[in-house]
Amino acid sequence: MTERINRQWRLASRPDGLIKETDFQWSEEPVRALHDGEVLVRNIYLSLDPANRGWVRKGPSYVEPVEIGEVMRGLTLGVVEATRNEGFTVGDIVAGAIGWQDYGISDGADLRLIPKGPLPLTAHLSLFGMVGLTAYFGLLDVGKPEAGETLVVSGAAGAVGSIVGQIGKIVGCRVVGIAGTDAKCVWLTEELGFDAAINYKTESVVRQLHRHCPDGIDVVFENVGGEILDAELTWINQRARIVICGLISGYNSTEPVPGPYAFPMILIQRARVEGFIVIDYMDRAGEAIQQMSQWYAEGRLKYKVDVYPGLETAPRNINRLFDGSHDGKLIIKVSDEP
Amino acid sequence: MTERINRQWRLASRPDGLIKETDFQWSEEPVRALHDGEVLVRNIYLSLDPANRGWVRKGPSYVEPVEIGEVMRGLTLGVVEATRNEGFTVGDIVAGAIGWQDYGISDGADLRLIPKGPLPLTAHLSLFGMVGLTAYFGLLDVGKPEAGETLVVSGAAGAVGSIVGQIGKIVGCRVVGIAGTDAKCVWLTEELGFDAAINYKTESVVRQLHRHCPDGIDVVFENVGGEILDAELTWINQRARIVICGLISGYNSTEPVPGPYAFPMILIQRARVEGFIVIDYMDRAGEAIQQMSQWYAEGRLKYKVDVYPGLETAPRNINRLFDGSHDGKLIIKVSDEP
Repeated sequence: MTERINRQWRLASRPDGLIKETDFQWSEEPVRALHDGEVLVRNIYLSLDPANRGWVRKGPSYVEPVEIGEVMRGLTLGVVEATRNEGFTVGDIVAGAIGWQDYGISDGADLRLIPKGPLPLTAHLSLFGMVGLTAYFGLLDVGKPEAGETLVVSGAAGAVGSIVGQIGKIVGCRVVGIAGTDAKCVWLTEELGFDAAINYKTESVVRQLHRHCPDGIDVVFENVGGEILDAELTWINQRARIVICGLISGYNSTEPVPGPYAFPMILIQRARVEGFIVIDYMDRAGEAIQQMSQWYAEGRLKYKVDVYPGLETAPRNINRLFDGSHDGKLIIKVSDEP
Repeated sequence: MTERINRQWRLASRPDGLIKETDFQWSEEPVRALHDGEVLVRNIYLSLDPANRGWVRKGPSYVEPVEIGEVMRGLTLGVVEATRNEGFTVGDIVAGAIGWQDYGISDGADLRLIPKGPLPLTAHLSLFGMVGLTAYFGLLDVGKPEAGETLVVSGAAGAVGSIVGQIGKIVGCRVVGIAGTDAKCVWLTEELGFDAAINYKTESVVRQLHRHCPDGIDVVFENVGGEILDAELTWINQRARIVICGLISGYNSTEPVPGPYAFPMILIQRARVEGFIVIDYMDRAGEAIQQMSQWYAEGRLKYKVDVYPGLETAPRNINRLFDGSHDGKLIIKVSDEP
């Protein structure tokens, strides 16, 4: 067996503002032999997600930060290349968090076997991965939308937002998306069935919300925060639910970011603002995947992936999440599918 | 029968910042004769509440603003002096919202009969009035504290906050109050049984929260907002509940007030921030009053009132709510008890 070389991106410094390539250090090292119980995974796809930005920051977070010198954390889809764990077979496709490297060794506890099937593998990093689960549980369990209500989704053309809006339509909501280009807005309304879409870069969000949500807003699925959230809050109905799934507008800020100026609307409208992180729902993943598989089979859920080749491009491509210059779930192709 | 003269404070202009006496106009007019179904109430006590500030502001609110020229709205306790409504008898004590005037005529729908009993009448504007109901439902129904959890109350020496903290102790919480003078803090800990109290004017709230909430914060009962809420949010636990009952720190602001800088903690800790207004719970008032009566009889609930004589003093005394220079539920005595 030839020696495998593991190429890695390790955190070199904590980013100040947008991530720079120099915040990471490229390293290469041989893959060690497996111990009993271990599995060797070769990464095929690496998921780049807004949450990654939080993982390299010191300070309060829902997970420990990646330490300087550590391999950058990242969700991955890979193939088992060797195993001394009887739960896995060579050739198995597994989802996990092997990180920004070619290979990872795991005891298997953090790996999820992906059933073989007709879906493209990237589906398991998008609609049928954390992205889909985030949309499903965040909207349905926290947002609790009801038929006839109005749902507003920010970051609507993003991986999560686009699925949220489609589930909102399935539930029977009026769905209005907020996105950053006209092309994205057209995709939302023409392809995904959103009732309306607002280009926040060229339109007044407040004015367009008034126009497209004539009965006010009942549910907000928030991926963005900042001025977008502020605009939404000014137009919420009594008992509105605001699901805080992401606050990407502030993730690269080097200054303290004020909360929404319309915060008193929470009181006035007796609204519920609730934070949501998908890891709390992993024990119910099966139910979501089953339901979304059915909707997908019925043609009621669509998704897009935007795949960039080469592990070496990860640090420069991750900022596409923050400047909007990607088109669908952002994925790095690390190696070929088997 | 001598003609009754009704002295009134009518809104003259919308206050800019703190309320000024010149924002109201004093007027006097004779009380008209009753029509069928009407009740004439003479105000005895007028409740001054932080919410009053919102009622004179244009803009989003949970009620219509008081219009220029209208008698200022206010919760009241009064006595029936004449009636052509068979639901009421002369001499009945009634709670209502007769406003800033000596007399009001009502069809009775907005009046609540106060049972005769041993309680001082002012109790029905404090522990057994809207104040007590606010504390009871806001804490128990929205905050849902559990025994062993840590509850932080801002505006803790205020009419609502002081009751919230005591109910928190009854539930079995560790209770930490935030107030504005050392004397108030001593009252909270020595008289009301709070576990600790923080003087936000002389101490670092963040540092003292760390000290007094060694296990973090599970429930916040928020009356204040601004920097206080920010400090609390930095120290919340997973699944914390933040009851937004009031945001008094911003009520007199003439500039847009930023929301909490620690807003992302809502996401990180999957917290629930929920607005609360007591009027939504009026159909359940009986249950709360019964329970609080029992606690009061057992000596587990105490309250304080701070009564200032003379309807004419209302505009100048209301700012005591905002500068903290009152000591207990702020009440104006309009006329003598029967």
